[in-house]
Amino acid sequence: MSNSDESKFTKRLAPVAIDNCGMALAADILMERWTMLIIREAFYGVKRFDDIREDTGIPRSVLTSRLKQLVESGILERHPYRADGARTRYGYVLSDKGRELGLTIIALMQWGDEHLKSGVSAIELKSKQTGKPVRVAFVETDATTIHLDDVEFNII
Amino acid sequence: MSNSDESKFTKRLAPVAIDNCGMALAADILMERWTMLIIREAFYGVKRFDDIREDTGIPRSVLTSRLKQLVESGILERHPYRADGARTRYGYVLSDKGRELGLTIIALMQWGDEHLKSGVSAIELKSKQTGKPVRVAFVETDATTIHLDDVEFNII
Repeated sequence: MSNSDESKFTKRLAPVAIDNCGMALAADILMERWTMLIIREAFYGVKRFDDIREDTGIPRSVLTSRLKQLVESGILERHPYRADGARTRYGYVLSDKGRELGLTIIALMQWGDEHLKSGVSAIELKSKQTGKPVRVAFVETDATTIHLDDVEFNII
Repeated sequence: MSNSDESKFTKRLAPVAIDNCGMALAADILMERWTMLIIREAFYGVKRFDDIREDTGIPRSVLTSRLKQLVESGILERHPYRADGARTRYGYVLSDKGRELGLTIIALMQWGDEHLKSGVSAIELKSKQTGKPVRVAFVETDATTIHLDDVEFNII
């Protein structure tokens, strides 16, 4: 490898401070592999502690603490439920704030499908209104966009 | 809190296996706070080891290993550079694969701006073609979208 022009590598710091950057603040809450996998479970409608554990293999104590953090961050809601004769247990579902992560999650999935799975998707997105395929993209703010609630997710 | 209907909390596992899920595979590479902050630096054009360190406060040994992982994953490229008389150093820039994370990063930023910063953005996105504001959204695949290279990022 030959040496590149040093002028391309002059000193430069980030123009936005970490504590003023939505990206950094969001990463601080979300960006830990177990946490991300728990959010993935929530998007797939997996609600029960034991089911999340069975899917992900997250150790019990880690799962307990990550679920607590996600409830405290307002991303998951904790609901009691009880089968006849059994003791009360708790299930975890996405709050509205949590559901709005759908855009990030699907953008991440698109990138993973393209670059880590040779373009093969496990899920197909469709508009519930028109039946047409849907994806996440940059658009002008006055473009016609589709609300997450109007996106249908189908396992291929 | 009263008990919810148990039928809403019946056993359910994720319909897509972790090793077949683009979301999970991508999370496995990206989702660690330091890694995410390094990618953030790259998006802001911060290339030099010492500059990344100054911005983020990541310990030297951790930064070295995370940069190595990101180069091995093909997200960052390592380029030598040399100032007159100084020894060769290395700078880190996004590969095409890395740049394509822009969609995920901006979706994450939008969520952070809305939910963690009361709707206040630090960065404004515009179309280089039309000058109109741009955002990340769900759209039909035949909608007019904007390529990352045509998005201008301005610090507010």
